[in-house]
Amino acid sequence: MSVTAPVGFTATGVAAGHAPDGAPDLALVVNEGPRLAAAGVFTTNRVKGAPVLWTEQVLRGGAVAAVLVDAGCANACTGPPGFQDAHAVVEHTARLLDRDAARVALAATGPMGVRPALDRLLPGVEAAAARLSEFGGDRAARAIMTTDTQPKTAAVRGGDGAGWTVGGMAKGGPMLAPSLATLLVVLTTDADLPAPELARALRAATRVTFERIDADAVASPNDTVLLLASGASGTAPDPGEFDEAVRAVCADLARQLVKDAEGATKEIAVEVTGAADEEQALTVARAVARDPLVKAALRAEDPAWPRVAAAAGASGAPVEPHRLAVAINGVQVCRDGAPAEDAAAVDLRFREVRLAVDLGAGDRSASLWTTDWAAGAAR
Amino acid sequence: MSVTAPVGFTATGVAAGHAPDGAPDLALVVNEGPRLAAAGVFTTNRVKGAPVLWTEQVLRGGAVAAVLVDAGCANACTGPPGFQDAHAVVEHTARLLDRDAARVALAATGPMGVRPALDRLLPGVEAAAARLSEFGGDRAARAIMTTDTQPKTAAVRGGDGAGWTVGGMAKGGPMLAPSLATLLVVLTTDADLPAPELARALRAATRVTFERIDADAVASPNDTVLLLASGASGTAPDPGEFDEAVRAVCADLARQLVKDAEGATKEIAVEVTGAADEEQALTVARAVARDPLVKAALRAEDPAWPRVAAAAGASGAPVEPHRLAVAINGVQVCRDGAPAEDAAAVDLRFREVRLAVDLGAGDRSASLWTTDWAAGAAR
Repeated sequence: MSVTAPVGFTATGVAAGHAPDGAPDLALVVNEGPRLAAAGVFTTNRVKGAPVLWTEQVLRGGAVAAVLVDAGCANACTGPPGFQDAHAVVEHTARLLDRDAARVALAATGPMGVRPALDRLLPGVEAAAARLSEFGGDRAARAIMTTDTQPKTAAVRGGDGAGWTVGGMAKGGPMLAPSLATLLVVLTTDADLPAPELARALRAATRVTFERIDADAVASPNDTVLLLASGASGTAPDPGEFDEAVRAVCADLARQLVKDAEGATKEIAVEVTGAADEEQALTVARAVARDPLVKAALRAEDPAWPRVAAAAGASGAPVEPHRLAVAINGVQVCRDGAPAEDAAAVDLRFREVRLAVDLGAGDRSASLWTTDWAAGAAR
Repeated sequence: MSVTAPVGFTATGVAAGHAPDGAPDLALVVNEGPRLAAAGVFTTNRVKGAPVLWTEQVLRGGAVAAVLVDAGCANACTGPPGFQDAHAVVEHTARLLDRDAARVALAATGPMGVRPALDRLLPGVEAAAARLSEFGGDRAARAIMTTDTQPKTAAVRGGDGAGWTVGGMAKGGPMLAPSLATLLVVLTTDADLPAPELARALRAATRVTFERIDADAVASPNDTVLLLASGASGTAPDPGEFDEAVRAVCADLARQLVKDAEGATKEIAVEVTGAADEEQALTVARAVARDPLVKAALRAEDPAWPRVAAAAGASGAPVEPHRLAVAINGVQVCRDGAPAEDAAAVDLRFREVRLAVDLGAGDRSASLWTTDWAAGAAR
């Protein structure tokens, strides 16, 4: 599983000394080739951590030989000195691995506004480089955890013994983890595909997975999703099959992120149908998913559907109030913008909640996942 | 004080039986003339309560003879039957007061998705009509409270014995009161001004007061701000002076709403300077004010300025990260997007917090008030 499920990759996780309990906090993933193709999707925040600024540059070359993930310090809001730190770590890693520094990617999460402690980080990289293993994917997945209670890994094999695999690991989702709200994902494949194909597949997959767990609300300066291809299977998959495998791995990881969201007691699927177009559906779904009053009601197991209607009305989308319908866990509590079936029939005792909103304006739809947790409640 | 500070108005508050403890929950304000000019500003939510739908119609005529405020039932998401209820209440009120129903405004707050209990509301209106008094402003202000702990009233007299006054009352601000997040404000004046002058003054005032306490995030279906003019002073004020008086009353009430926000432990002034234009400044200010991570940090008295920078970066405004400066309570913790003065010097023990963000992009500014409270923490 994880990033070493495909052939052509080694990985590991070590303790670089950020975590007080000596837990692993530094992961290294190396693409052993023969191909070094890669693609990335990064935070939409204009404030970007130094690791993101560096790795965006690396990705312009379309090739990544190694990814170092530091789960101890975000190295964001640190100015030019922080960028120099990032560069020093990359140079050190490249030297140890005997690779081109311009092909070493960096991702990080942790406190912002402070520079990484190089006196611990550089020896950590040395320890990691010495422990790389083709079975190290699970160690790597464990090392990137912060507020996560479980490591998050996934893998999908190409159908009919096609011989290629997509694997991946992820940590803590934005909006879901109030303390260190960074989404870090490393995906690997042994499919033999060039960087543009990877970029297309990755963009298509993130759009309907990681971007559908209400990540945008507080996009962290460090959000990073990478896809590395080793080509070691010697197989160039059918593009449709490959896209689907990448999507499936991303969807699996995204669902795990929702399940393990810090502080959440409900996992809420918001499904908007009857929209004029997908954008309208998504705008309403996001507004409902982010509404603190909706979250508070579901946390209290209160089927307060008018809050859902009000969130839709305040979304900015051209919603017609008298056409709105809302169902909670299958009970049609609102039809034509007014009460319908008895809300007392809604059973909200379980962790999974399904909020279905129909706009009565067309046949397009969109859905996303959120939780009942608002970060403001954290402390 | 309150709505009976200007001459030409009577008011009262009575218990119509919504509140379990028999507290007053129904307010009536009557414009005794000679003029009946009025203006209103309503929720931007496309889902509007029946009272808003009714009162928007009344305001098209530019004249309001009476305002009934029901603090027991929002009458929102109730469909055509709810609108018929609103109409029945208006007809009843008009008959009791011997006024034209088309000039009776209605405002309401309370549970959504349920119809008002007319068997209690109609007798309540009778009790109110029988108790109207030119000293009843404070009773009215008390009757519109829901989660408020204090009634909110204000009044400003025209300068140099000009002989006119602006008074007002308000209840619970959106985003500030998670349970019943409705902003209701009734302003009165004895100035002798036509409806268009009132509308201009009211719009200008709300833009920089009620709309600057981060009301937009979850605009309730029932938000209503009304300004009624009796003309009883016989004086037509200078427009500039009148605008300023309306703004001052609105600012006073808005500040009281922040002070009394349910669950808040901090009152946070977000001041954005150095913007290219006011819209950019306001976009950043709203993003910072709404960011749950910023709220959580200040609640914990943690001067986590990188969260402020990250909120600005995620605002959608074209912020240049390396030009950002942040000061918290006067300590310049961030300059050029990187750490500056020691954040440990920031004193966050007091209730009022000042977050100053400079974008380094121009000379325009905007500020607003928020709190450390996110409604998701309510239950």
